[in-house]
Amino acid sequence: MNVTKKISLLVAILLVGIGLAACGSLDNSSMSSSTNNVTGEKNKKNTYQTTGSASGEYAGVIKNGRYVTSKSRGLTADQNGNVNNTKSFESGLQDVSKIVFSPSKYIFQEGQYLSTDTVQDWLDRKSKSNPDGLNPEDNGSKDSEKRNPIYLQALEEQDYMEKSGTSLKLKGVTIGLAMNSVDYYQKEQYGAEYETKISDADIKAKSTEIAKEVLKRLRKKSEFKNVPIVIAVYKQASNDSLTGGTFIRYTNNSGEKLAAWKNLDYKNVIYPLGNDESSPNSNDSTAFDNFKTQVESFFPNLSGITAKTRYKGDAMQGMSVTITTQFYSETEIKSFTQFASTQAEKYLPSGVNIDITIRSSDDVQSFLSRSAKEKSFSSHVFSSY
Amino acid sequence: MNVTKKISLLVAILLVGIGLAACGSLDNSSMSSSTNNVTGEKNKKNTYQTTGSASGEYAGVIKNGRYVTSKSRGLTADQNGNVNNTKSFESGLQDVSKIVFSPSKYIFQEGQYLSTDTVQDWLDRKSKSNPDGLNPEDNGSKDSEKRNPIYLQALEEQDYMEKSGTSLKLKGVTIGLAMNSVDYYQKEQYGAEYETKISDADIKAKSTEIAKEVLKRLRKKSEFKNVPIVIAVYKQASNDSLTGGTFIRYTNNSGEKLAAWKNLDYKNVIYPLGNDESSPNSNDSTAFDNFKTQVESFFPNLSGITAKTRYKGDAMQGMSVTITTQFYSETEIKSFTQFASTQAEKYLPSGVNIDITIRSSDDVQSFLSRSAKEKSFSSHVFSSY
Repeated sequence: MNVTKKISLLVAILLVGIGLAACGSLDNSSMSSSTNNVTGEKNKKNTYQTTGSASGEYAGVIKNGRYVTSKSRGLTADQNGNVNNTKSFESGLQDVSKIVFSPSKYIFQEGQYLSTDTVQDWLDRKSKSNPDGLNPEDNGSKDSEKRNPIYLQALEEQDYMEKSGTSLKLKGVTIGLAMNSVDYYQKEQYGAEYETKISDADIKAKSTEIAKEVLKRLRKKSEFKNVPIVIAVYKQASNDSLTGGTFIRYTNNSGEKLAAWKNLDYKNVIYPLGNDESSPNSNDSTAFDNFKTQVESFFPNLSGITAKTRYKGDAMQGMSVTITTQFYSETEIKSFTQFASTQAEKYLPSGVNIDITIRSSDDVQSFLSRSAKEKSFSSHVFSSY
Repeated sequence: MNVTKKISLLVAILLVGIGLAACGSLDNSSMSSSTNNVTGEKNKKNTYQTTGSASGEYAGVIKNGRYVTSKSRGLTADQNGNVNNTKSFESGLQDVSKIVFSPSKYIFQEGQYLSTDTVQDWLDRKSKSNPDGLNPEDNGSKDSEKRNPIYLQALEEQDYMEKSGTSLKLKGVTIGLAMNSVDYYQKEQYGAEYETKISDADIKAKSTEIAKEVLKRLRKKSEFKNVPIVIAVYKQASNDSLTGGTFIRYTNNSGEKLAAWKNLDYKNVIYPLGNDESSPNSNDSTAFDNFKTQVESFFPNLSGITAKTRYKGDAMQGMSVTITTQFYSETEIKSFTQFASTQAEKYLPSGVNIDITIRSSDDVQSFLSRSAKEKSFSSHVFSSY
């Protein structure tokens, strides 16, 4: 990591802030704006700023007075029938990147080198008119077992930069491949929706094939010739899932040949568990049930309490609880928020990022949050003047 | 304040929690659940718990295993054409109560002694069938200047309790009178809406009249015979206002004769200011404009930045900023949240409770908050698994 002292200083300034941990945390963060308008009139193209950063998070790039938005990101969003897939694919890809590109050394830039057209061609089926398609040719079959499904649903580029002289230089790139576990298709336009299920074995085989091809293509582009290329594979959840999918493995490549995969053992679990479902850790399930029972028995007018959780192996990494109320009064919301806090501290697992959102049918009324490091919940009631 | 040592201990336990300041704050709060199931089977009716409390906030009452909801509160909600009035009437009434009934000594209970029927009768016009109506008789006129308007739009009771033996005892009550500044009426059912404007002088005269009558009626009820009765007057904002109204004065009564009014100098201001509007403090207006300009110039795709603020005299007490974005990507939201934090610390007034909600068209994406005592913003990005 060839980091100059200047960079270290910049990073130190950026990281005065503490808190804002990856997901679900609500630390006290003092973020510092770092304006690096180091170039003069002559070199205006290289003028950049960063968004400021916070512990464990990347600073983002502001160039020529504008936040640099993704070149191809919209593609992902449009094509997903489950919005949780889109959100967790994007934020999860950053989490995988953190393993390789430390937020304390690198600045995050939304993908800039693969254009919308390129990514669209890659995501389409291979055909005479689209030789670059990474999805298989249409074999004409409409039978769910015999047809060639769409394996690759979305592809996202994320750039990791370092300061070089007066500008930023690309020092690494992460490519996310979102693989379908179910491919939804129609037999005729506007017709009923059918499904082709894709096995885990197929996801692995196809993602390896696609990763090899993507790596080869990227190495041909001058920007990507000599930088580390991380390729991470995401398994999409089905459209009827209440959570998004998870990243299942990644590979960190320095050369042209695909390096060995490293497995990622994530799992998303919804509480309360259904009848035929199990938790990686039955204590967590019991803890949630106790919390739910306590809160429901003491407060009338609750419509439901559910939690989305993320596991790594059998260790919970994050929990996001939603409580839907039929309250109206602000005093009731305040009292309920306080009560929920006491019960959450008593029953919910410690050492885990937890957030609890209390909402009425139309909007968020209040929310509570505790990071893995904290002992007590912070809370906020949305007030009105 | 006849507080026994036992009570002090209870209060001390309740107030282990710190933070959760009145509005807009997001302190770290450690709330303690205080279960006071002190009575046995014989006396089950008096079994109560509290919701737990936090610094500067009331603990609420849980009785017989249920949070005690308001007897008459629904009335307020139904009758307001401006939902901000309802919310700020209820939370503002608690703020006025804090002047008289300290949250460190009293436990808050939603109003239990005036029934829905009673309050409904009081809010209706006086008539042969409803001699208790506090609003004037219908004089038959449909002319906006000649008719008798509805002066009293809503009435709310809040009870302030202390522990007495094994149960809670009413030690004070606050009555909020929400007075119309505009009365909306129809000349025929389902017809167009007309307005009768009500002057500040009329609001004062009528609220004094109504307060005297309410005090007289409450003193006849055994529960209210010997407790302090605070009556607070709220001036409703018009239906087209983007904020709610404000409390304009209150009176703290120990006897049967209405005590002197004390004025409350609150004002709600929306930023950016309109052309013919002014701010109680022009520095605040400039500060907000600078913040808005900075944020808008650096991030594309923002739909709007507005702030609701509360003033006491010319001192800002709270600011609630809403930023509407057209972002989709979670990485963009993260970067933007970080950037907004640096700009808010740079430009927005210090020593004031500030919260900033970042939302897309459909939901809250992230939010930032800083209490008056804090120097830096806390932030939370709503993640998805």
